[in-house]
Amino acid sequence: MIKLNTNENPYPPSPTVIEALQRAANESLRLYPDPEGKALKQTIADMYGLTQDNVFLGNGSDEVLAHTFLGLLTHELPILFPDVTYSFYPVYCALYDIQYQTVPLDEDFQVNIEEYAQPNGGIVLANPNAPTGSAINVENLRRLIDHSRNSVVVVDEAYVDFGAESAIHLVKEFPNLLVVQTLSKSRSLAGLRVGFAIGNTCLIEALNLVKNCFNSYPLGRLALAGAEASLRDTEYFERTRHLIIQNRDLLAEELAALGFYVVPSKANFLFVRHVSYGAREIQQQLRQRKIVVRHFPHPRTVDFLRISIGTPEECAELIKALREILS
Amino acid sequence: MIKLNTNENPYPPSPTVIEALQRAANESLRLYPDPEGKALKQTIADMYGLTQDNVFLGNGSDEVLAHTFLGLLTHELPILFPDVTYSFYPVYCALYDIQYQTVPLDEDFQVNIEEYAQPNGGIVLANPNAPTGSAINVENLRRLIDHSRNSVVVVDEAYVDFGAESAIHLVKEFPNLLVVQTLSKSRSLAGLRVGFAIGNTCLIEALNLVKNCFNSYPLGRLALAGAEASLRDTEYFERTRHLIIQNRDLLAEELAALGFYVVPSKANFLFVRHVSYGAREIQQQLRQRKIVVRHFPHPRTVDFLRISIGTPEECAELIKALREILS
Repeated sequence: MIKLNTNENPYPPSPTVIEALQRAANESLRLYPDPEGKALKQTIADMYGLTQDNVFLGNGSDEVLAHTFLGLLTHELPILFPDVTYSFYPVYCALYDIQYQTVPLDEDFQVNIEEYAQPNGGIVLANPNAPTGSAINVENLRRLIDHSRNSVVVVDEAYVDFGAESAIHLVKEFPNLLVVQTLSKSRSLAGLRVGFAIGNTCLIEALNLVKNCFNSYPLGRLALAGAEASLRDTEYFERTRHLIIQNRDLLAEELAALGFYVVPSKANFLFVRHVSYGAREIQQQLRQRKIVVRHFPHPRTVDFLRISIGTPEECAELIKALREILS
Repeated sequence: MIKLNTNENPYPPSPTVIEALQRAANESLRLYPDPEGKALKQTIADMYGLTQDNVFLGNGSDEVLAHTFLGLLTHELPILFPDVTYSFYPVYCALYDIQYQTVPLDEDFQVNIEEYAQPNGGIVLANPNAPTGSAINVENLRRLIDHSRNSVVVVDEAYVDFGAESAIHLVKEFPNLLVVQTLSKSRSLAGLRVGFAIGNTCLIEALNLVKNCFNSYPLGRLALAGAEASLRDTEYFERTRHLIIQNRDLLAEELAALGFYVVPSKANFLFVRHVSYGAREIQQQLRQRKIVVRHFPHPRTVDFLRISIGTPEECAELIKALREILS
């Protein structure tokens, strides 16, 4: 089975992470972890020239986002996010009774910055966006954040390490910006559950208030140790993320040659539509060949498939299977 | 430093848990965990002759409780819990805007079952209670659950394995009963973060609704693997919990001999008041001797100290220090 449906990293975590986890699997597990995760926060803060007070940790970026919706995005005015984006945003709104309004992406699935310059209770943008893979230019993002200084702008950078530009350097300038990242994708640690947010100390304090009413210890000792080891291994991180970028760009060319329209992607997946074959049909035929890709039955995405980037061998298998299907 | 302040287990986790964690610290961490945790649920279900649909998993019992308050305890009528109990219950109420009313424990810190026979939006009882260590007889608990069939009764059994009787066998009989347990105390895994709830399928479904709107993957691959190994090692579990019960009963006798009133405890801690010395003073003097115990400045508990049960050596050090302090 070739699993190209959940945007997992095809490369294993850094060997230093495995070693750190094996070392941390010891008798000290009888003790609670540090509820603040200070060592991990410091590691993250050091990466960006910030302080621990700028960092919030969570049990995967999904938990970070959930606390963000409850702690920072519950206001009178509706919050704004694209009509095609991460499917959990409306789910959090339903959970916490938050009003929202979707802003349509343009015809090429790009975010139209101007359309967010309206009264709002907050803005949430995935950059790169999912499931499209499109990235927003950081200068555009800066304009948007600058225009919405009275509301919190959340930039969800789950996929940023695959070629988009991070907004983290804007945190010092804009107290209304919160950037969320995860170790699940570019750090190959979907199975460990670690995410974080970076922002002004006021935003982080508000998130801590929610977290400390919910679960004092969101990250166990193993998650803390593994995450720290991962973030310290820059060399492995750079090497594997560039391999994925290479695999992606090659796969995009090969898919285009097979008659696919490929949305330009800065993520570890491609969002593609075939000129003549239906997405559902291709998905089913791939499944028969033991290759799993994702389909989103939303009206605007129904003709598309989202394909996670695998190893070169997995991508080659995919192309071979598609050649058979489309012949 | 002898740390007797957070009710951690003085014994390490089972060696089979350490082995399972070291095995699970492998390349598969690049993949998401099973969002349902089916293997772990089945292990728990098998322990009690139940099915996976009776089991809910969470990132520590604190997360299980948080989801329980939001998913099962938000009603018009106030929920009820004792005036002296786990300090997080009112915190969850504040987080989710839930009305509550505290019911005073009697003079001996016992739960008066009759006082819960009033209209309510739910009942939450820690059994044994914290920080007192007092347990409720399960026949009394059964009467209470029977009297409150229109509301959910949550029994928080964080400390049940140290000598109290679990209410889990009542789940088949009462669809309004939810029992919450944790691996942090009797399984020596405070650092891994695993808790669970057991109840009627309708209650578990309601919890799953909340969970699936919050975080699809609350337990990582290591937490799932470690928890399963722990629950399967019955021999180690029985041995260490009985050691703690022995240590507790011996410590209780020794403290009584030193002039302490000791609340009868079925937990891995003792709640004690000295006939002549103040709790704060004793706590500070112990701290100077590098022994840490807990003090709760609530009016009803201000004269008491809560002392976690350590190893026999740690308990002996405590008694030695107290002899010096009280002489």
